[in-house]
Amino acid sequence: MKLASLKHGRDGRLLVVSRDLRRVCIAEGVAPTLQAALDNWDECEPALRRLYQRLNRGEHQAAFAFNPVECAAPLPRAYQWADGSAYVSHIELVRKARGAEMPPSFWSDPLMYQGMSDGFLGPHDDIELADEAWGIDFEGEVAVITGDVPMGVNEHRTLDHVRLLMLVNDVSLRHLIPAELAKGFGFFQSKPATACSPVAVTPDELGRHWHNGRVHHRLRVTLNGVLFGEPHAGTDMTFGFDRLIAHASLSRCLGAGTIIGSGTVSNRDPNAGACCIAERRTRELLDTGEASTPFMRFGDTVRMEMCDAGGHSIFGAIEQRLTPYSGPDQ
Amino acid sequence: MKLASLKHGRDGRLLVVSRDLRRVCIAEGVAPTLQAALDNWDECEPALRRLYQRLNRGEHQAAFAFNPVECAAPLPRAYQWADGSAYVSHIELVRKARGAEMPPSFWSDPLMYQGMSDGFLGPHDDIELADEAWGIDFEGEVAVITGDVPMGVNEHRTLDHVRLLMLVNDVSLRHLIPAELAKGFGFFQSKPATACSPVAVTPDELGRHWHNGRVHHRLRVTLNGVLFGEPHAGTDMTFGFDRLIAHASLSRCLGAGTIIGSGTVSNRDPNAGACCIAERRTRELLDTGEASTPFMRFGDTVRMEMCDAGGHSIFGAIEQRLTPYSGPDQ
Repeated sequence: MKLASLKHGRDGRLLVVSRDLRRVCIAEGVAPTLQAALDNWDECEPALRRLYQRLNRGEHQAAFAFNPVECAAPLPRAYQWADGSAYVSHIELVRKARGAEMPPSFWSDPLMYQGMSDGFLGPHDDIELADEAWGIDFEGEVAVITGDVPMGVNEHRTLDHVRLLMLVNDVSLRHLIPAELAKGFGFFQSKPATACSPVAVTPDELGRHWHNGRVHHRLRVTLNGVLFGEPHAGTDMTFGFDRLIAHASLSRCLGAGTIIGSGTVSNRDPNAGACCIAERRTRELLDTGEASTPFMRFGDTVRMEMCDAGGHSIFGAIEQRLTPYSGPDQ
Repeated sequence: MKLASLKHGRDGRLLVVSRDLRRVCIAEGVAPTLQAALDNWDECEPALRRLYQRLNRGEHQAAFAFNPVECAAPLPRAYQWADGSAYVSHIELVRKARGAEMPPSFWSDPLMYQGMSDGFLGPHDDIELADEAWGIDFEGEVAVITGDVPMGVNEHRTLDHVRLLMLVNDVSLRHLIPAELAKGFGFFQSKPATACSPVAVTPDELGRHWHNGRVHHRLRVTLNGVLFGEPHAGTDMTFGFDRLIAHASLSRCLGAGTIIGSGTVSNRDPNAGACCIAERRTRELLDTGEASTPFMRFGDTVRMEMCDAGGHSIFGAIEQRLTPYSGPDQ
């Protein structure tokens, strides 16, 4: 099943989207918003699936054309966004470039930060930021949306709580990160609003490509229409979502609608390219002694998409232009 | 105006509470939940104030007795919880105890971390945690709840966006913090669910005791009925909420219902006592070479309250017992 949110008010209006991403219908009479559906999933899911089946068979009378530009993030605002960094070889590479050794514990103990969740950007929303000098970067990731997860959940049960999967662009301000992390309290100003793919899908949509808590497809990222990277999300993912969810729930329960991210998708194979500029710059630095690719500039457009074996887009694309923010009216 | 949330479903039911915390009424016909009221504050506020006035005059027919035990947190779940550490002398003290110098920039650049907001504990909810060995501590703080704050808000306009104030108990797992912060991504497992006072109040309730973005009253904390600390929240608060809100909104807008915390209230004067065990232990270590006060033990009860000049509780009390969590049913 594929779900999306039409831009509408603060929380959007829940849409069911056909498998081929051509037709949509409003989830009328089931749940007004995706959060409402997640809050009451056992009751809503069967009804949404019935709508989905009718839509796929072309039987839904009130269906209309899918337009991702009119979509908000599946959850336009959420109660929790916990972002892992599960491709550990990416961390190792970045550390190597700055001459720092990575603690061996990073291979067994996941990195995760608490991100802002009060406003996600829609898939085609501009990234509006005030200053190019902040070192504006994208990060292509896979994320899951969970139901209610009990505190201390058994790792073997975590995947039962995965309701939906989607893509995210975890925008990062690279030049603000070092000073912020040096303060010891993690990311805050250096992690502005994150964007999401137009569509979130239930795990069964991925078939055998969802196993081991990993999505076994390539994530394709382009910058201004030029391929930037196409690493395989199922390769080199040290911690699957089973492990990330268990990590997140050690000392807390996770409320329905919690979003958990994989961190930048990254492969050891340099030919796969990168899902963030920082990784490419790191490879340049190690190869040539100089990081030559600049961070994003106003007017740049980043695009992220994941296709199935037949070349069909699974989640729809994130496609965002970086634009200057002129400040609040005040 | 004083507001609270009756335990009910995921988001509670909005209550208006009389100034003396004796009577309440359901905000029937205005907004079902506090989040709904914050989402539409300009319309809801006057109607809530009319209920408040009738309640204070004893004219509300359907009013009933206020029982904080039946209260959830004012926002049982919220879209953002950003916790500052604005009492910088507290940080300086803790650093001194471990022989580390505090960077001078800490006096001019606020510390803030992104906290979990998908589930706040009610004022009388048990703190359920699995392991005493985690070094379980409380932290008494003042917090504001904002309306929508634009990105890059002018610091002189930030306080216009403060809708409500309350107290919070930012539970911390001291023995998980060092390893977690060493990883560089900030707090996650070491910051379980935070509790809130039963009542959140509009700034006008504080009169002249709310100025300079600071609350000028003492925060009284007891542990098992014995006074633990009573520092003055308006003293030694290096950054007021004006500054904390400006810091939080540098590269993001803040959605309505964002909660921003002061960090542990702390005074330089050791006679004021402490609002967290870690601070007392630090003073013990500096004074005697040994930290003798243990962290919380199962069965311990912590209480936090702030009273006005006449000795009347402003926000009601947080009163929580620490109990062992036996694990999920699975």
